[in-house]
Amino acid sequence: MKAVQYRTVGAAPEVVEVPVPEPGPGQVLLRVTAAGVCHSDIAVMEWPAEALPFPLPLTLGHEGAGTVAALGEGVTAFAVGDAVAVYGPWGCGACAKCAEGKENYCLRAPELGIRPPGLGAPGALAEYLLVDDARHLVPLGGLDPVQAVPLTDAGLTPYHAIKRSLAKLVPGSTAVVIGAGGLGHVAIQLLRALSPARVIALDLGEAKLALAREVGAHETVLSDADAAAKVRALTGGLGAQLVLDFVGAAPTVTTAGAVAAVEADVTIVGLGGGALPVGFGTSAYEVSVSSPYWGSRGELAEVLGLARAGALSVHVETYGIDDAPLAYERLHAGRINGRAVILPNG
Amino acid sequence: MKAVQYRTVGAAPEVVEVPVPEPGPGQVLLRVTAAGVCHSDIAVMEWPAEALPFPLPLTLGHEGAGTVAALGEGVTAFAVGDAVAVYGPWGCGACAKCAEGKENYCLRAPELGIRPPGLGAPGALAEYLLVDDARHLVPLGGLDPVQAVPLTDAGLTPYHAIKRSLAKLVPGSTAVVIGAGGLGHVAIQLLRALSPARVIALDLGEAKLALAREVGAHETVLSDADAAAKVRALTGGLGAQLVLDFVGAAPTVTTAGAVAAVEADVTIVGLGGGALPVGFGTSAYEVSVSSPYWGSRGELAEVLGLARAGALSVHVETYGIDDAPLAYERLHAGRINGRAVILPNG
Amino acid sequence: MKAVQYRTVGAAPEVVEVPVPEPGPGQVLLRVTAAGVCHSDIAVMEWPAEALPFPLPLTLGHEGAGTVAALGEGVTAFAVGDAVAVYGPWGCGACAKCAEGKENYCLRAPELGIRPPGLGAPGALAEYLLVDDARHLVPLGGLDPVQAVPLTDAGLTPYHAIKRSLAKLVPGSTAVVIGAGGLGHVAIQLLRALSPARVIALDLGEAKLALAREVGAHETVLSDADAAAKVRALTGGLGAQLVLDFVGAAPTVTTAGAVAAVEADVTIVGLGGGALPVGFGTSAYEVSVSSPYWGSRGELAEVLGLARAGALSVHVETYGIDDAPLAYERLHAGRINGRAVILPNG
Amino acid sequence: MKAVQYRTVGAAPEVVEVPVPEPGPGQVLLRVTAAGVCHSDIAVMEWPAEALPFPLPLTLGHEGAGTVAALGEGVTAFAVGDAVAVYGPWGCGACAKCAEGKENYCLRAPELGIRPPGLGAPGALAEYLLVDDARHLVPLGGLDPVQAVPLTDAGLTPYHAIKRSLAKLVPGSTAVVIGAGGLGHVAIQLLRALSPARVIALDLGEAKLALAREVGAHETVLSDADAAAKVRALTGGLGAQLVLDFVGAAPTVTTAGAVAAVEADVTIVGLGGGALPVGFGTSAYEVSVSSPYWGSRGELAEVLGLARAGALSVHVETYGIDDAPLAYERLHAGRINGRAVILPNG
Repeated sequence: MKAVQYRTVGAAPEVVEVPVPEPGPGQVLLRVTAAGVCHSDIAVMEWPAEALPFPLPLTLGHEGAGTVAALGEGVTAFAVGDAVAVYGPWGCGACAKCAEGKENYCLRAPELGIRPPGLGAPGALAEYLLVDDARHLVPLGGLDPVQAVPLTDAGLTPYHAIKRSLAKLVPGSTAVVIGAGGLGHVAIQLLRALSPARVIALDLGEAKLALAREVGAHETVLSDADAAAKVRALTGGLGAQLVLDFVGAAPTVTTAGAVAAVEADVTIVGLGGGALPVGFGTSAYEVSVSSPYWGSRGELAEVLGLARAGALSVHVETYGIDDAPLAYERLHAGRINGRAVILPNG
Repeated sequence: MKAVQYRTVGAAPEVVEVPVPEPGPGQVLLRVTAAGVCHSDIAVMEWPAEALPFPLPLTLGHEGAGTVAALGEGVTAFAVGDAVAVYGPWGCGACAKCAEGKENYCLRAPELGIRPPGLGAPGALAEYLLVDDARHLVPLGGLDPVQAVPLTDAGLTPYHAIKRSLAKLVPGSTAVVIGAGGLGHVAIQLLRALSPARVIALDLGEAKLALAREVGAHETVLSDADAAAKVRALTGGLGAQLVLDFVGAAPTVTTAGAVAAVEADVTIVGLGGGALPVGFGTSAYEVSVSSPYWGSRGELAEVLGLARAGALSVHVETYGIDDAPLAYERLHAGRINGRAVILPNG
Repeated sequence: MKAVQYRTVGAAPEVVEVPVPEPGPGQVLLRVTAAGVCHSDIAVMEWPAEALPFPLPLTLGHEGAGTVAALGEGVTAFAVGDAVAVYGPWGCGACAKCAEGKENYCLRAPELGIRPPGLGAPGALAEYLLVDDARHLVPLGGLDPVQAVPLTDAGLTPYHAIKRSLAKLVPGSTAVVIGAGGLGHVAIQLLRALSPARVIALDLGEAKLALAREVGAHETVLSDADAAAKVRALTGGLGAQLVLDFVGAAPTVTTAGAVAAVEADVTIVGLGGGALPVGFGTSAYEVSVSSPYWGSRGELAEVLGLARAGALSVHVETYGIDDAPLAYERLHAGRINGRAVILPNG
Repeated sequence: MKAVQYRTVGAAPEVVEVPVPEPGPGQVLLRVTAAGVCHSDIAVMEWPAEALPFPLPLTLGHEGAGTVAALGEGVTAFAVGDAVAVYGPWGCGACAKCAEGKENYCLRAPELGIRPPGLGAPGALAEYLLVDDARHLVPLGGLDPVQAVPLTDAGLTPYHAIKRSLAKLVPGSTAVVIGAGGLGHVAIQLLRALSPARVIALDLGEAKLALAREVGAHETVLSDADAAAKVRALTGGLGAQLVLDFVGAAPTVTTAGAVAAVEADVTIVGLGGGALPVGFGTSAYEVSVSSPYWGSRGELAEVLGLARAGALSVHVETYGIDDAPLAYERLHAGRINGRAVILPNG
């Protein structure tokens, strides 16, 4: 079968021919219907050889959807032909975190060498994907796989970041979204569907701010040196109860800290290398600053439920598998509008 | 191997010879080191044939501990010889509840015919126990299996019932435990270890009240018609923030409702057939009344953690497998002190 | 000034002349701009003399809004002319519940003889209302008092009932509202604004169901003997995660229990005299049944915030103070559409 | 009456004669039975004139207890002679935070010029203290005022810091306390009384570590460059679920971040000027870092409840009012063992 692989450190990904895998006990083989292309793949492909936490070649793709092609021994919960999405942050399934479905925080994954598909295990950018355990599948329930596949990361990650703060988003509260791109434009929709908070979006250009308004932001503010003052003014001086930073660079985390209200959550999702110093007096009282990673199994099912209710619309560009290297090129150049999705069997 | 089976409706359990099972993919075979005998087994054996939700014969025992004897294909998280306890309320592993480890509330178990060991699947009262999936094992971590095995039900059930109400047990609050028997005497210890609440225990006889004080109750009250008034007086008229009823009969649920404070939780665990009517004005404002069942995978690990810290001491009587029918007889006659544990290989 | 008083047990309310009160230290005098008429007033007026918890005559009206007319000594937080709503469930302000703003659950109100305006203290159905403490005022912030005044009870009560269960209303969940009248038609709007749950409304007639759909219910079901089966079917057999019963009669609480999912909340708000028995096996596992009362100070501010955001629309009929007895008559006869509001100075 | 005042920027406090205040409407005059001396007073007295947020002279003392000497008009909840503790972080009583009893986070205090006694308003280091509103009093309920008065800050502050994280302190979890001084030695006792967590205390000298063990720490570790590695080792490599830093200096916040487990809370209470940078990859996944301030009205009542239950023992040195300057001198020199308490009428 064809697979899009990262084969040589620093080189572009290539489309190669590899054998179709066979499912062992408890495993499931999917015929891939859609696979997402993500900025973090590009980040990983820029690391030097010594920083790579897995050997090459690696089949890329940590967002995957497919139809069940074959079942390993002992799998009874699914049948051949079922349409499913893949929960990506695989864990051991047995530790204290995995026992609550938080496999993204598996306590034993490093020690056991468990890694997500496309980030260590063979990924979804191939005609077939081997899923290590049937519990990592969530039924699509009628969703279009092309629309649904970005939700496994670009939907699940902001969903988790928002859900943990929902109790703070009472009527009259404000949520700030910094970065209205792949994850941010989904975050705005999630906030509107899940809470009565007023949503203020920040980004660098008017085009991104227009997209933010289109998907539901009540207010938009250019992300410059005056942004924090403008957000403060929009909130009567009190600040926002939740600040989601999908950029995570030094200037954006500074803005995030500056607009946080008393007892707010500042949640840094972006990998931009910034860090916000926290100590007595650095922000308003009891602002909690953290940086979560992906989401839980239960949360993925909830995100897909929200999509089925019609509350989420992801901007998607599709490519055939032979054009996957091109999709990465365009993503790197900032020329993808929303999310790029590969159709390996399309 | 020997197994203690319920074979004929209404008859006593018998010790019979059955084949040692073999683990399929994902399954684990345990050599049983300890298995608990429980009142609910007796309740089930009193049901008429048409009410039985499973066919006979049935190997009994829903509390089990053992050492791993053989691994099915694909099981990597455990090794032969590991000492483990068994999480009993098996579920599908994939539904919304199972995805959070709440297999006790699996949404698909009835439809898929999944039942706990000893309550439908072959149970732990045998030399060997087949566990359907490695995720249902929790390492004992050095605990004595005889002391630990009752914790899988008589510990986990009150632990879950208490944990969901911990936020209400602030300093100055009161927890009432009705029934200081198998589950109740563990509940008192759990309350002392997990909260600063004052614990008031109710039971019918002075012997049970003495046990309650011995394991940590601050106050004890005879469970009669004056009990509610006495508990009210002990709480300055305000009542208790948590009431745990391990009897669940008509008089005890009435007492439970009568001693509940504003915003209290009344949690009915016992199968005594009572029911507390809830409507406007029936109890103090916003008293929440519910009846939970067993607990989650994560909670079982936490209960065992508490035992390892030395906070729990279960009163246990041990029997060889040939004496299991005798243990049931004594339990039925109210002659077991604490919990009866069978040693099938002892 | 004119006041609408309940003067003789069993008789209709009368409009009488009484002195304008003067505010003592910490108190505030309001010129009433709007006052709500409520079913619970009628319930109280049907009680026999020996059941009345307060002496007659009583000025009615527990929903009030006004402008500040005079300040008692020591009041600094408000100024003459401020437009405010009144938080009705007055408490002592100092006990453990009041310290969290839950004056509706004040632990000392009975002992201190503190009662809400219109339900013991002189109420809002008069030209002027004496508010016992400035902390019981919430600024209207530009809201129309006629639209806002029902929110102090008919908005706050369902808001509190919903807020405590929001964590259960994840995407894919269902909320059932029984009774689409005064409180119920606000509850439907609150559910839509606060959660992604699907809302199913039950009532007796098609007119009420049409109103329910108009204010946001996704589905409506006639509240008859088949209602529970229909709701089960609409939820794929699983039931609802939250059931709000604004009727509280014997048949509706039975329906409420029958449609509750595992771990659901059943919240009985209506004073219809029904009570749902709770014990092991009476409903799905761990269904919590409770009956709350009104809401907290903070929650009233949140409800008003939601109204300012445009999320709530209350159906209102207005009357002059001389027509207040007529409004009660019509309400009793079931001829009020939505909520009746008196304009004592209008 | 005598009062201990800070009169000249940079100078030591002085004992002076001032008039006994008179309570206005809603206010309460206390005859002070005990007043605490705190490090933060010394910090304030080291600020330059332009940084002082209040005019001089200022009567010091933000920890106060007393007996009611006189009631302002309209106060009914207390009687002359009642023994009470003072809730120090006064707020407006009406904003969204105050409505939940979180006056420490009052949204309007700066604008209204409201400041705590001893930190802007006249404080407790005097024979009499004027309390601005009766709601700021909590009955002592039989507690010795000398033992109780430090709990209004040195007890309430760690209590709040711990309570917000209790859900993370399940059996098997670990809490790390950095700094076993005034607040830290109370925090250790609170952790033991409120949770089953294992407590590890860090400090600079063996004497402090001995005190930590005496009040309940399970393990102690010298707070040096190896401390983080030692704590990691003690937790099987996983780290702690809660880290409380009562020092807040650059090295301690670094240690705090290094020992935090996945999803842990790092809570920086100390005013040591350090700040922990938070961004993707800076600590374990989803570690929440924040810096709270004091606590709520309800929490103060809970701390006093815990003291009444015998769970807290504060190390106290007492001084007469004329020796208050000496107490400050000794505190500054690090020569106070535990907490210094002044007896203005003793």
